[in-house]
Formats: sequence, structure tokens, C-alpha cells
Amino acid sequence: MKRIEVVQSILEANDSIAARNQRLLDENEVFAINIMSAPGAGKTSLLLQTVAHLRNGLHIGVIEGDVASTLDSERVRDEVTAVVQITTQHMSESCALIATMVDSALKRLPLGDIDLLLIENVGNLICPSEFALGEHRKVVISSLPEGDDKPMKYPIIFADADAVVINKLDLLPYVDFDIPSFQNSIRGLNPKVKFFQVSCKSGAGIEDWCAWLLQELEDHRQKA
Amino acid sequence: MKRIEVVQSILEANDSIAARNQRLLDENEVFAINIMSAPGAGKTSLLLQTVAHLRNGLHIGVIEGDVASTLDSERVRDEVTAVVQITTQHMSESCALIATMVDSALKRLPLGDIDLLLIENVGNLICPSEFALGEHRKVVISSLPEGDDKPMKYPIIFADADAVVINKLDLLPYVDFDIPSFQNSIRGLNPKVKFFQVSCKSGAGIEDWCAWLLQELEDHRQKA
Repeated sequence: MKRIEVVQSILEANDSIAARNQRLLDENEVFAINIMSAPGAGKTSLLLQTVAHLRNGLHIGVIEGDVASTLDSERVRDEVTAVVQITTQHMSESCALIATMVDSALKRLPLGDIDLLLIENVGNLICPSEFALGEHRKVVISSLPEGDDKPMKYPIIFADADAVVINKLDLLPYVDFDIPSFQNSIRGLNPKVKFFQVSCKSGAGIEDWCAWLLQELEDHRQKA
Repeated sequence: MKRIEVVQSILEANDSIAARNQRLLDENEVFAINIMSAPGAGKTSLLLQTVAHLRNGLHIGVIEGDVASTLDSERVRDEVTAVVQITTQHMSESCALIATMVDSALKRLPLGDIDLLLIENVGNLICPSEFALGEHRKVVISSLPEGDDKPMKYPIIFADADAVVINKLDLLPYVDFDIPSFQNSIRGLNPKVKFFQVSCKSGAGIEDWCAWLLQELEDHRQKA
């Protein structure tokens, strides 16, 4: 019993810090997205495409989560208003961003100058689903070469997503991936989810994705 | 301090159960491989190809680890001597197999009838690197569409691997993946690692991989 209590209290503490992060974001009118996926599904590529499409109208900040290395921050540094890298390797949790890490990052970002905050989580389909960060929307990227059975194997992350971005559409002719069947398994877990089909390599589908993101940001501002 | 002590004692307990698992495997002359990768890199596909190539000469057992679903066990069930599925979703650790789970699985396997035990870990490049299971060799699969930067982002799992299998070689013309650069970054962490380049779809490279596996099994028997 003791052990379960400890784990619950860690998750409760995380939720309370996440709620505080969200209040801070709201006070500064920052709309935050938590981007999650398996390693190599295209989080940084989607982030770079999104920044390229939206930076003329919006000030964009980025939090980069990685177990090790600052490679992804280096890739986005020159494209955005501000970026903070979190490397989780020597932290108590290494397999996901948690709310205290985002709290530290928010303190280093010029929140008053940022409209949209893109948080790139650690590449993992399991741990990130357990930790709220204070984000307004959760997005999961699935890439075609991973296979269409992932929702059955990692159901929680798909059940909680506001949007699922199907990436690497350019590889469709070369892999076995049944898009309708993939979407149906997710709809069974999560009927309200939005789907986008993109190729971050060719840019296909990026406009639809960005249009949704802008609309969600506007809807959020209206409600505030 | 208290918290770090708790975590260490969990890892110590895990190591001690892993050592007990290995003694049980050795008593039964079972050679065990821990197969790890990101979601969708091809653990089950490599397992099926390996079984197809080796089952005429060896009795093969399988432990399937998944967060949820028994899909992978269903795919291998008819091909092997015995299979045990572990679903981790409601366990204390859900993001990796740990030694106690393998201990339970070993009790359900006919160890006396098995020569080679293939353990398919949960799809994750982070957590599985922390938990020894009792295996004799660790294998990491990296698939080309994931990108060649994974060793920099997930160094521990690559540093500890006996072999790295580069999968989805059939997609090489369609993705940006520099194989020599990928291999060099791993050699920097792990000079003794063996590399295999395969396509589980076409079967290319599977013979070399299986030849190594047989040789390792023979070497292990000689030493026993």
C-alpha cells in the first residue's frame, strides 16, 4: 500500500505543478502544445514545418525534451523566438518530460513575447502519457513505418490525444500501413480525436495541420 | 537522499532476480536474448524471421512484452515451442520488462525443451536499458526511418548492446540515413558491438544475423 501511495503522490504533485504552469501560460496568453511520439516519428520535423508556416503571424517558443544531446535545439534555434532544452538523462524521470521540468523552462522563456509554445516531449509512447505538463492540447505523431498496430499496443497516449498526425506519408507506397484501420482503432479509444496526414519531408498536409492549430489557438483566446 | 536509496534498492533487487533468472536458464541450457527497440522498429518481424531460419535445428521459446494487447504473441504462437505474453499496463513498471516479470514467465515455459529464448521487450529506447532480465545477450534494433541520430539521443541502450540490427534496409532509397555515420556514433559508445543490416520484409541479411546468433549460442555452451 505504501508504494502505491508514493506513486500517487508523485502524480498528484505533478498534476498540481502542471495546473500552475497552465495558469502562468494563460496569464501570458501563451497557447501550449505537447508533442509526443515514438523515437524518430518526426517531432522535430513537424515542429520545424510548423514554425516555417506560422512564424510570420506568430511568435513561437520551443521547449525541447531529450534524454541526451542538444541536437534538436540546434536544429530549431535560429527559427524561433526562444528555445529551452531539457535533457532528462540525470533526472529522477528520464523517460518523459514532467511538469517541474517545464516549470523550470517557463522561467527561462520570454513568455510575454510568445503566442505559441511547442513542447517536444522525449521520444516514447508510454511514459509521457502519465505526466501532464500544463499544455492546452496533446498531439501524437505516428509515422507510417512504425506500423498501424500501435494504438492497440500503446492505447493510453492515443486515448488522451487531441490530434494524431500521421507522418511520412511519402513512404506509403513502400510500407504496409492501413490508414483507415489505424484511424478506426484510435476512434474506438477516442471518438473526438482529429487526424492529419502529412509528409514533413515534402510538406504535404502541413497547411491543414497548421490551420487547425491556429483555429485551436483562436478558440482558446476567445474562451479566455 | 531517501528517494535515491529507494530507486537504487529497486534496481539492486532487479539485478539480483536477473542473476537468479540467468542461473535457471543456465541450469536448463537455455540461451536467452533480450531484443529491444523503439515502437515499430521490427522486433516481432525479426523474431519471426529468426524463428523461420532456426527452428529446424533449435527449439525456440518466446517471451513477449507489451504494454497492452496480445497481438505479437498471436503472430508467433504457431511458429515456436512455447510463448508467454507479459502485458505491463497495470504493473508497477509499464515501460519495460523487469526481472520479476521474466521470472514469472520462466515458470510457465518448458525450459528443458528450449534451446533459444527470444525475449521481446516493450517498445522503448529508454526504460529497458535500466533493467537486466537475466539474458545472455542484448540486441537493439534500429530501423532506417527513425533516423541516424538515435545513438546520440538514447546513448545508454546502444552502449550496452552486444549487437545492433539495422532494419528496413528496403527503405534506404526513400529515407535520409547515413549508415556509416550511425555505426560510428555507436562504436564511439561501444567499440565491441556487432552490426547487422537486414530487411525483415525481404529477408535480406537475416542469414548473417542468424549465423551470429548460432555462433554466440555455441560459444556460450562451450563455456558452460
